[in-house]
Amino acid sequence: MQDTALTAVPALSSSPARLAAWLRLERCAGIGPRTASALLDVFGSPDAVFAADFAALAAHVNPAQARALLQPPADTTRRLLDATLAWLDRPGHGVLALGEPGYPELLSHIPDPPLLLYIRGDARLLDGPCLAIVGSRNASVQGRANATAFAEALSGAGLCIVSGLALGIDAAAHRGGLGGPSSTVAVLGTGIDVVYPQRNAELAAEIARRGLLLSEFPLGTAAVAHNFPRRNRLISGLARGCLVVEAAVASGSLITARLAADQGREVFAIPGSIHSPLSKGCHLLIKSGAKLVDSADDVLAELSGFRPSGRASTAEPRAASQPATGLLAVMGHDPVDVDVLCERAGLSAEQVASQLLRLELEGRVTALPGGLYQRLEKP
Amino acid sequence: MQDTALTAVPALSSSPARLAAWLRLERCAGIGPRTASALLDVFGSPDAVFAADFAALAAHVNPAQARALLQPPADTTRRLLDATLAWLDRPGHGVLALGEPGYPELLSHIPDPPLLLYIRGDARLLDGPCLAIVGSRNASVQGRANATAFAEALSGAGLCIVSGLALGIDAAAHRGGLGGPSSTVAVLGTGIDVVYPQRNAELAAEIARRGLLLSEFPLGTAAVAHNFPRRNRLISGLARGCLVVEAAVASGSLITARLAADQGREVFAIPGSIHSPLSKGCHLLIKSGAKLVDSADDVLAELSGFRPSGRASTAEPRAASQPATGLLAVMGHDPVDVDVLCERAGLSAEQVASQLLRLELEGRVTALPGGLYQRLEKP
Repeated sequence: MQDTALTAVPALSSSPARLAAWLRLERCAGIGPRTASALLDVFGSPDAVFAADFAALAAHVNPAQARALLQPPADTTRRLLDATLAWLDRPGHGVLALGEPGYPELLSHIPDPPLLLYIRGDARLLDGPCLAIVGSRNASVQGRANATAFAEALSGAGLCIVSGLALGIDAAAHRGGLGGPSSTVAVLGTGIDVVYPQRNAELAAEIARRGLLLSEFPLGTAAVAHNFPRRNRLISGLARGCLVVEAAVASGSLITARLAADQGREVFAIPGSIHSPLSKGCHLLIKSGAKLVDSADDVLAELSGFRPSGRASTAEPRAASQPATGLLAVMGHDPVDVDVLCERAGLSAEQVASQLLRLELEGRVTALPGGLYQRLEKP
Repeated sequence: MQDTALTAVPALSSSPARLAAWLRLERCAGIGPRTASALLDVFGSPDAVFAADFAALAAHVNPAQARALLQPPADTTRRLLDATLAWLDRPGHGVLALGEPGYPELLSHIPDPPLLLYIRGDARLLDGPCLAIVGSRNASVQGRANATAFAEALSGAGLCIVSGLALGIDAAAHRGGLGGPSSTVAVLGTGIDVVYPQRNAELAAEIARRGLLLSEFPLGTAAVAHNFPRRNRLISGLARGCLVVEAAVASGSLITARLAADQGREVFAIPGSIHSPLSKGCHLLIKSGAKLVDSADDVLAELSGFRPSGRASTAEPRAASQPATGLLAVMGHDPVDVDVLCERAGLSAEQVASQLLRLELEGRVTALPGGLYQRLEKP
């Protein structure tokens, strides 16, 4: 199975001409991913874009862009094609193109999906549901332990863990993902053939073996600061939701969380001490509408198609296994107030309040707005 | 001013006959606070209720309740009246009746306001805006420090701090309230002349001098478990909002928070480590819609008429506090044991123990039950 996956994916490697057209479009000066995506919507394929004349192009892009599209590919692009074709010859390497088979469905719907994705590893991971886990590079020991524990539990529940291969929370999340059956995807801010950061080289190699490395950047792209925040839209875009484990207030993780929200993804955050600067970012997210989670089950509960394991839940009412006697028996199944219960049970308000408290703590009665109480039955 | 306040309040003490009627209504068997409140809406005063005949009463209550209202007051009620009149003779003591001058406006709008409030101290505190601060009796050292810091900052911003005089968070909140100009109100679960818990006797005396003690229970009412949750509706009912500092999942603090929400009050909760059982209740509240706060300013921002100070937030470490280095840096903000610290710091158990002792003496680390240690930040 592993071998099949590793050879079945690189759709573009079998067609150097098609890859050439994709690379030419992707590398074309003045054409960003949004413009390229719009051109593909109109013309259908890179080949068709390059077959169009000035008038046809200028109906959709500005004159400078139309002129750029009519230029032959630059020498650097030709050399990049050769290098990419050579790279694609190795097992487990692939290139996915927007709108073609294998390109991740969720990612294709973000406003600015990459035209090309370079992948190395188990491409099947992109077919299943993913969850992004991100956080500070300077994470606390507890934060890293939390990242690994959540990632492993969620990988166990069927979610592939997506992160950015940074030090700290990212690396801890990848390790947790590898620890479960749904593995992990690392989205790089460099070319897929560049190892960065060096301290994660061994982890990257393990992810190439048992997970998936992914990058939108051409081969050989070195680590440049501005590529990392840009890359973050892929981390959120690949995933159903984004969990922030630890983050300072002004941090890249908050940018990823904001991108996730913009992309319509669920945003989750783990709270912590109000005195920890690494929890401030998470608290800010929760104040802005992110879901507070203190267990992997809390994440699963928010994602359609997933079921909390029931193991670590904190909110389950206790089962009402005992028969209804006393106050519970006179309560019936409709909302009632304390006065009515006093009357029905022949008890004082104090006695009723005391019994209600006990029943509430046992999860057998629930309080409703307006001072009403109702029996709580487990289905 | 203080003397004026202490003598101006006890409206009912000047009219033994009126107090007698109020006490007779409040003590009447089978009549809960809602029924009593409804009767007062119809008849206007306790005197008028007791002047009505069976037919007039039975138009509004059931026959058993009407018969109870026609009975003369019990001997115990007569003796209670004498004791209450004697108690009212002392300065600073008062009784407020529902719908009469001095009764707290916000409290009068809850579904089941007490007919009578016994007060001792500075009654003017009931005229200003209040904020409830509640939490666990078995609070952590950091939780108590947070309660005091938030209470002092909010008292400084003009909010009188309401709590329940319990050990732990309640006591810490009262102390913080006393530390600011807006002081504190303690709502007792016993008669106002009963000191409970004994360990807070000195605090109660200080609150009687510079704050206000308040109870709905008749004089001499001993500490009975079921009266404390019942009392919680007053803590929330007196206040504009309710802040939960630390709380377990099945705890009275969560019931107070739920009462606050039912009464239309803002609910605030301080987050903490997902591994601390004392934060689980706060997290549950935040999941259910309570506002996560990590500074007093966060509370003020939600209350109309108040402005965040914009000062360094409650949660900011003091400028004076040294940076966390060595053992402190690897400790994080969650409870950890010595083994974990040895591993993280690469030190021997002896070295860790020695450093922990020094940090504890410096007040930078606190020891918790179960051999755990936690960093302590001075807000």
